[in-house]
Amino acid sequence: MTIRPVTTKDEAAVWSIIEPIVRAGETYALPVEMTETDALRYWTGSDRETFIAEENGSILGTYYIRANQSGGGSHVANCGYMTHVSAQGRGIARRMCEHSLDYARERGFRAMQFNFVVSTNEQAVRLWQSLGFDIVGRLQLAFRRPSGSYVDAFVMFRAL
Amino acid sequence: MTIRPVTTKDEAAVWSIIEPIVRAGETYALPVEMTETDALRYWTGSDRETFIAEENGSILGTYYIRANQSGGGSHVANCGYMTHVSAQGRGIARRMCEHSLDYARERGFRAMQFNFVVSTNEQAVRLWQSLGFDIVGRLQLAFRRPSGSYVDAFVMFRAL
Repeated sequence: MTIRPVTTKDEAAVWSIIEPIVRAGETYALPVEMTETDALRYWTGSDRETFIAEENGSILGTYYIRANQSGGGSHVANCGYMTHVSAQGRGIARRMCEHSLDYARERGFRAMQFNFVVSTNEQAVRLWQSLGFDIVGRLQLAFRRPSGSYVDAFVMFRAL
Repeated sequence: MTIRPVTTKDEAAVWSIIEPIVRAGETYALPVEMTETDALRYWTGSDRETFIAEENGSILGTYYIRANQSGGGSHVANCGYMTHVSAQGRGIARRMCEHSLDYARERGFRAMQFNFVVSTNEQAVRLWQSLGFDIVGRLQLAFRRPSGSYVDAFVMFRAL
């Protein structure tokens, strides 16, 4: 598997990853009815760098990295990761996160923060913990699931 | 003191509040060299509602309110408050925060979150605590002061 910067030729593939995750509405605080244009503008915006994980010409995952804050907070990175629904469970998110940690160090970031990890996304929480992230904050009932129930979200953080 | 929505006529007054706070670089994670155009675009952006606190025709403070996240996180509000340097210590931030809490309830928000309260801004931390906010997260060394030293930032949160 290789991880490389996204290009405009990857847009359809990126959308095929994002669409089912956004539509499911269980893990990202994004509008479930988000359009392709808005989703790509968000995921590949000019305030971030976006990467693609691919294997044998198939795009299996994508992530972005950006500064989580401006000014005095710009040494803390923030990332989002999505794995294609057909490629889940194969360690792709782990590979992308490891790549992002290396890249963040290389770029001079001193820490990485995830602002909003939905507590019911237990697999993700465990994965980030195994990669050195701590739960440093609990946001009570900050996420509304499509079922209508409210669950906590976590702030996760690690130094680099 | 009255609190009302900002208009384009207030831009110079809003900038006179923002400029010294941004240039000081001690409390907001915004670029210290931020231009007036960028600052106004940020503070009065289309993703938020911005208010003005005024007394006898003088604008003493300003705050914005927005959803802190989209989609399943859009029931949590986020605000930023700034008081004119010449009007600090008169309870204006408190009045603006009380206004924002009422307004947030009215708009159907269920909680309010501050993502990045610089720990050395002790007056603000105490003020938000007195208004019902808890420190729910500590971001280690997430803020770089203009002196070059790194200090913690807090995530603060309260239900509405």
